[in-house]
Amino acid sequence: PLRRKHDERSLAFADLTREEYLQVQRYLVRQKDLDISTNQITKPSQNFLFLIELSLPKKADALAYLDGKGAKPIREATAVVFYGKRGHIKEYVLGPLPNLTYHRDVTKERYNTELHINARTVTIGEYVMIFTCIEEIFSKLGKLVKESFDVGPDKKLNAFEQMPRGVQSGDRKTWISFFRDMAGMYIHPVGFEVLLNHGSVNASDWKVERLLYNGQYFNTVEELQQKYDAGSVNKIVYKESPDYGSLKPRSTPLQIGPQLFYTEGKRYSISHNHVLYLDWSFAFGLSSLTGMRVFDVRFKGERIIYELSVQEAMSVYGSVTPGMILTKFLDSSIGIGRFAHELVRGVDCPHEATYVDTYRYFDVPAPVRFRNSICVFEHNMGQPLRRHFSDFFHNSYGGMVNSALVFRTITAIGNYDYMWDFIFYQSGSVEAKVHATGYISSSYLVDGSLRHGHQVAENVLGNIHTHFINFKVDLDVVGVNNYFQTKDMQYVNVSLPWMPDRYAMVPQLVEKQLTTEQEAALRYDTKTPRYLHIASNKTNRWGHQRSYRLQVFSFAGDHLPESQPEERAMSWARYKVAVTKHKDLEQTSSSLYSQNNIWSPTVDFSKYIEDNESIEDEDLVAWVTTGFLHIPHSEDIPNTVTVGNGGGVLLRPHNYFDEDPSIHSTDGVYITPG
Amino acid sequence: PLRRKHDERSLAFADLTREEYLQVQRYLVRQKDLDISTNQITKPSQNFLFLIELSLPKKADALAYLDGKGAKPIREATAVVFYGKRGHIKEYVLGPLPNLTYHRDVTKERYNTELHINARTVTIGEYVMIFTCIEEIFSKLGKLVKESFDVGPDKKLNAFEQMPRGVQSGDRKTWISFFRDMAGMYIHPVGFEVLLNHGSVNASDWKVERLLYNGQYFNTVEELQQKYDAGSVNKIVYKESPDYGSLKPRSTPLQIGPQLFYTEGKRYSISHNHVLYLDWSFAFGLSSLTGMRVFDVRFKGERIIYELSVQEAMSVYGSVTPGMILTKFLDSSIGIGRFAHELVRGVDCPHEATYVDTYRYFDVPAPVRFRNSICVFEHNMGQPLRRHFSDFFHNSYGGMVNSALVFRTITAIGNYDYMWDFIFYQSGSVEAKVHATGYISSSYLVDGSLRHGHQVAENVLGNIHTHFINFKVDLDVVGVNNYFQTKDMQYVNVSLPWMPDRYAMVPQLVEKQLTTEQEAALRYDTKTPRYLHIASNKTNRWGHQRSYRLQVFSFAGDHLPESQPEERAMSWARYKVAVTKHKDLEQTSSSLYSQNNIWSPTVDFSKYIEDNESIEDEDLVAWVTTGFLHIPHSEDIPNTVTVGNGGGVLLRPHNYFDEDPSIHSTDGVYITPG
Ligand SMILES: [Ca+2]
Ligand SMILES: [Ca+2]
Ligand SMILES: [Ca+2]
Ligand SMILES: [Ca+2]
Ligand SMILES: [Cu+2]
Ligand SMILES: [Cu+2]
Repeated sequence: PLRRKHDERSLAFADLTREEYLQVQRYLVRQKDLDISTNQITKPSQNFLFLIELSLPKKADALAYLDGKGAKPIREATAVVFYGKRGHIKEYVLGPLPNLTYHRDVTKERYNTELHINARTVTIGEYVMIFTCIEEIFSKLGKLVKESFDVGPDKKLNAFEQMPRGVQSGDRKTWISFFRDMAGMYIHPVGFEVLLNHGSVNASDWKVERLLYNGQYFNTVEELQQKYDAGSVNKIVYKESPDYGSLKPRSTPLQIGPQLFYTEGKRYSISHNHVLYLDWSFAFGLSSLTGMRVFDVRFKGERIIYELSVQEAMSVYGSVTPGMILTKFLDSSIGIGRFAHELVRGVDCPHEATYVDTYRYFDVPAPVRFRNSICVFEHNMGQPLRRHFSDFFHNSYGGMVNSALVFRTITAIGNYDYMWDFIFYQSGSVEAKVHATGYISSSYLVDGSLRHGHQVAENVLGNIHTHFINFKVDLDVVGVNNYFQTKDMQYVNVSLPWMPDRYAMVPQLVEKQLTTEQEAALRYDTKTPRYLHIASNKTNRWGHQRSYRLQVFSFAGDHLPESQPEERAMSWARYKVAVTKHKDLEQTSSSLYSQNNIWSPTVDFSKYIEDNESIEDEDLVAWVTTGFLHIPHSEDIPNTVTVGNGGGVLLRPHNYFDEDPSIHSTDGVYITPG
Repeated sequence: PLRRKHDERSLAFADLTREEYLQVQRYLVRQKDLDISTNQITKPSQNFLFLIELSLPKKADALAYLDGKGAKPIREATAVVFYGKRGHIKEYVLGPLPNLTYHRDVTKERYNTELHINARTVTIGEYVMIFTCIEEIFSKLGKLVKESFDVGPDKKLNAFEQMPRGVQSGDRKTWISFFRDMAGMYIHPVGFEVLLNHGSVNASDWKVERLLYNGQYFNTVEELQQKYDAGSVNKIVYKESPDYGSLKPRSTPLQIGPQLFYTEGKRYSISHNHVLYLDWSFAFGLSSLTGMRVFDVRFKGERIIYELSVQEAMSVYGSVTPGMILTKFLDSSIGIGRFAHELVRGVDCPHEATYVDTYRYFDVPAPVRFRNSICVFEHNMGQPLRRHFSDFFHNSYGGMVNSALVFRTITAIGNYDYMWDFIFYQSGSVEAKVHATGYISSSYLVDGSLRHGHQVAENVLGNIHTHFINFKVDLDVVGVNNYFQTKDMQYVNVSLPWMPDRYAMVPQLVEKQLTTEQEAALRYDTKTPRYLHIASNKTNRWGHQRSYRLQVFSFAGDHLPESQPEERAMSWARYKVAVTKHKDLEQTSSSLYSQNNIWSPTVDFSKYIEDNESIEDEDLVAWVTTGFLHIPHSEDIPNTVTVGNGGGVLLRPHNYFDEDPSIHSTDGVYITPG
C-alpha cells in the first residue's frame, strides 16, 4: 500500500523519449542550411549531429509548475552539432516538443565564447580514421610488431588513448598506448605508444609525431623500423602472457549467498520517471553527459532537494611514459551517463530490484535503448537504523531495522566502472555515493616507472592516480531562500559555577554563517568546520533554524597544482564543498568540452564564485567533491574492489524535523517484558 | 560445504565458562585470609569480588600453541577484588583452570602502583547506598519535589551520574542529575542536581555538598528547603511532559521490508568460539570490560590478525550545569562488554543470523548468562564487490556480489547503544565499525545552555559531545616481524621525455618507513599520509613488501586539551593511529580504573610510546581511534540514528596477495554474448 500518489509533473525532468529524439533529429535534418549528417561514421570534416538531450526547464518555471502556480514549462531539447566544415561546435535549444518550431543557437549564451571544433569529443567517425592510421603504422612495422607482440593477420593489439590530447590550446595530439587483445586489456600493456597529431579534420593532414618502443623514443615510424631492423633497438621479444585479466570464475558455484526477498511485495513504486517510497518521492533522469540525477525530492510531500546530480569524474595519473604522464580524464566529456549499460541481476543489484530502461542519443545515428540501465530497490542494510535497550529503570526495547531505497546506475567508462548510488533513508537522510571498480590503467614497466606506482603483473605498472567526483546538491530547505552555516566545537576555559576558582576546558558550540561565495568555497587543503548546513530562517519547534547537514566522506588525493594550465578545467576539485547562488546558466560544474579543450575550459567552476555573490537568503547550490587516492597494488588484479574505494555525501536533517521521522515508520519494533 | 576445519585451539581465547567462573569464585572464597564476599550488595566497606575474566595467554605462548610448536597455554583467570576493609583494589591471576592451585597478586606488575579503593567502579552495593541517600534528600524536600516534579509515594525521579567524580585524585564526589521516570528518561531532565561526596567507604561519612535547582545553587538540602519554603527560589512548577522519549511505534505495521534468506543454507559455521566463513577463520571472545574481540584471524589458513578488539569508548560533554559540565565518560571502566545484551532478531541482526550466548561475571553474585548477545551472519551488501562491463573490443561482463560475514554485538551503556561490527570480506579485507544509537544525554535548559548544544524538547538541551572509540589492531603480516610504512602522492615537476623543455607536474608515489614509536604516533591534528601500512619484509610475486593497509573512517571532534588533568587517561585519543611494539603488559589502551581515578590513570597510553622503541622488524600493534562530533538536534529525539553516526577502520590487503583473492570465489559471475 502506497502512502502517496504519483505525480505526472515529474515528467518535466524526464529524459527525452525515443520519439522525441527522433523529432529533434528530423527537425535538424530538415534545416537544409545547417547541412547536418546523422550518419554514425560522419567524417570530422563534415557536420555531425553528435548529441541530443533534454534541456532542463528553468528552475523558476519548474518550481511554479510543481507548486501549482505556473504552466507546464515548455519541453525543449539541447542538440550539439560538430560543424567540421565550419570549424566550430554549436549548441542549440529546440522546442517546443513534440512539434518543434524553433531552434536557437545558445552556444554564446551558455559559454560566452565560440567553441572551436577541436574541443569536440572524438566520435566514432574519427575513431574509424584513427584506427586506419594505426593499421598503417602496424603494417609498416610488420616485422617489429610480429616479433614483439605477435601481431599478424589474425591477431592485433588494442589501443587506449591518453587525454588531454596535448599540452596547449588547439592541440589535438594523442598518445595512443597499445595493449594485448585479451580480457582486461587495460592491464596488458605491451610497451608501444604512438603520438598521433589529429588536429586537422582531414586525416590526410594527420601525422605520427613520435613513437615509444620499449622505453626508447623515435621521431617517425620509419626511424623506428630502420633502427629495429638495424638491431640498434633494445627489442621486446614476444612471450605469451597469462590470462590474469580474465574475470571468468575459477571455482564452481557451490552454494549461493544470502538473497534479499520482498516477502510481502515492494514498498516502492515507479511510474514514468517518478518514484514513491514510503514517505519519499522524487523524479529521476539520466544525462548522457553527467549521469544520473534526481529532482524534486520530497519527504512527506515537502521538497528538500531540487536537484541531486553527478557532475564529473576526474582522474589524474602519474607515469614516466607518455601514455599516462599527462593523463587527466574528465569523464563527462566522454559521457558518464552514456555508459550506463545493462545491470546484471543478482550482482549489480539484487534479483528483486526493479530495472528501468533508458534511451540516449550520443554519437549515434538513431536513439538507442539501454535495457535495465537503472535499478531501484529497497535494501535491508543489515543493521538497526536506531535501537535502545533499557535495563535500568524501564526494562524495554525499541528499535527499527534500517531498510532504505537505493537508486543506482553503473557506468563503465573504458577501464573503470563507477557505481553511483542515491540512497533514501527512513530517517529523512539522502546519501549520494560512488564506488569504483573495473580495471586499473597500467603502463609497460620501464626504468623509473616505480616512482609512479607498483608493479602488478609481469612488466606491468599500476599507475598512481586520483579519483575526484563532483556532485551537485541543490537543497531547497523550506523553500529556496537559504543560508550556509557551519557548526563545530571548541574548548573554552570556564570557571565551575559551584567552585568558581576552579577552571576547566569545556566544549562549546561554535556557529557561523558564511556570507559570500568565496567564503563558502571550502578548500580541500584547509581545515573546515565539521558540520556544514544549508539552513532556512524558518525555525523548528524549538526555535532552531531548520537545516540539512552535508557530511562528506572522502579520501581524496591532491587534485592538481593551480599552476598547471589544465587546472581550471577541474577547479571544482579545489573544494570539498563550495556553495554558490543558484543560476540556470550555472547548470554544471564541468562541460562536454573540458577534456579536449582543457586549457581554455568553456566551464571553469571557479568563475562561479569569482563574482563573490552574497549567499544569504538566496537559492543555494552546494557542489561537493569526494574521491580517493589510488595507489594500485597486486589486489587490483584483475579488478579493483568496491570495498574502501569510494566516497560520498550524506544529506541529513538537522533541526529540520521536530523529531526523528523514522519514529513514525511502520517498521518500528517495541518489546516489553512479558 | 565448508572449506576448512574448525580448530579447537581457538579455545585458548574463549571466555570463561559458567563452570570456570564458579571455580574461580569458589577458590577465592576458600581463601579465608582474603575475606572476600560475593554478595551482590556487599557494602563498599567490605571486600567484594567484583570481576572474573579470562586472563589472555601470553602472545608467544599462544602463537607457539597455535602453530603447533608449543603446549597449550595454561588457562588462567583474572579476578578483581575491591578491598573496602583495606582501602585498596587487587588484581589476581588464578590458575590453572579447572583445578586452581594458585592465585598471584598482579596489581603491581600490571600497573606499577597500588590501586586506591576510590579508583573502583561503583558497585550495586554502593548504588543501594546512594539510592538511600537520594531518598533521604527527597523526603527532606517533600514539598519541593512534589510541587516541582510531582514526586510522591508512587512517583519518583531517576538518577543519572556525572563522571569523573570530582576534579582531582582521591575525589569521589558525584553530581547526580534527576530525570523523569519515563521512557527515555535521559531526555527528560527536571532541573535538579545534587553533588554527593561518597569518598568514604562508609555511607555515614557521606555528605551532600551542593544542590542545583532551576539554575540556582545551594550548599545544603536544608538551605534549599528553607529558601524554597520562604519563596526566595525561582520555582519549577510541575507540568506533565509529553511522552516524546517513547520508542513505541506510532503506526501499525503494513507490509514488512526486504528480508534476507539463506536459500541454500549457511556458508559459515561456528563451533565453540571458532568461526569459519569461506576462506576466513577466527576465534572470538567478549571481554566484560572492553567488549568484543577476535583472535587468530586467518585467510586461507594464513594468520593476518592476531588480535582485533574494542578498547575504549569515550565521550566528553559540554554544559553550563554541573550534570554535564565536566562529563568525560570512559566506558570500559563501567564495562563495555558487560552491557552486550540480547540482540533482537530482525532488527539488531537479520532473522537468519546465528546468535551466541555469553557468560559474564561482573558485579554479580554468580555468573550470568546473556542469551543471544553476539550475532553472526552473512550479509548481502546489495552491491557488487567488483564488476566490469566491457563494450569495447571484448564484449563481456564479469562480476561478483559483495557478500560478507558480520560479527556483531550491541552494548547499551546507559543512554547510548553502540553497535560493534567486525566484517570479513571475500576480498581479504576486515573492517571494524562502530555506530551509535540510543538516547542522547541532556540537561535542563537554563541561561547560557545554548552555548553547549541545541534545544531538543521543552526545557531540554541536547549537550554537545564527542564520541571517541579506540580499537586495537594487532596485525601479524606474514609473521610477527613487521614494519610501519606510509604511502602518499606528491606532485613533482618533470620534463616531458619527448619534449624535454616542456615541464608538467606529475603525481609521484612517496613511501616512507617510520622507525620509532613516537614517529609512528599520528596525531589527529596533523596531516597524516593517506596510506598507512603494516608491512612484512617478505615480498609478493612482484617484489613489493606484503602489507595490510589501515584506512580510518572518522569524523572525530577534539578529544581534550592536554593541559587538562583528565587528559592522560584518554591519551590514546590524541592519535588517529599509533603504532607500538607489542608487549603482553600493554594489553589495553585504557583500564577499569580510568574513570574513577582519571587524574592518575593506571593506564596512560602515551607511556607506551614514551620509551620511543624501534618499530622496525618488530611485532607491531596499531591503536586506531575513530569517532564523531555530536551536536544534538531535534532528530536525536527519541533516538540517535546509526546513519552517519559512526566510524571505523578497514584493514585491506596491499600487495599482500598476488591478485585479488575474490577471483577465486564461487560467487563470481561471467557473461559473454550468446
Ligand atoms: Ca556567483
Ligand atoms: Ca537551493
Ligand atoms: Ca614502547
Ligand atoms: Ca603484530
Ligand atoms: Cu583507481
Ligand atoms: Cu552522541
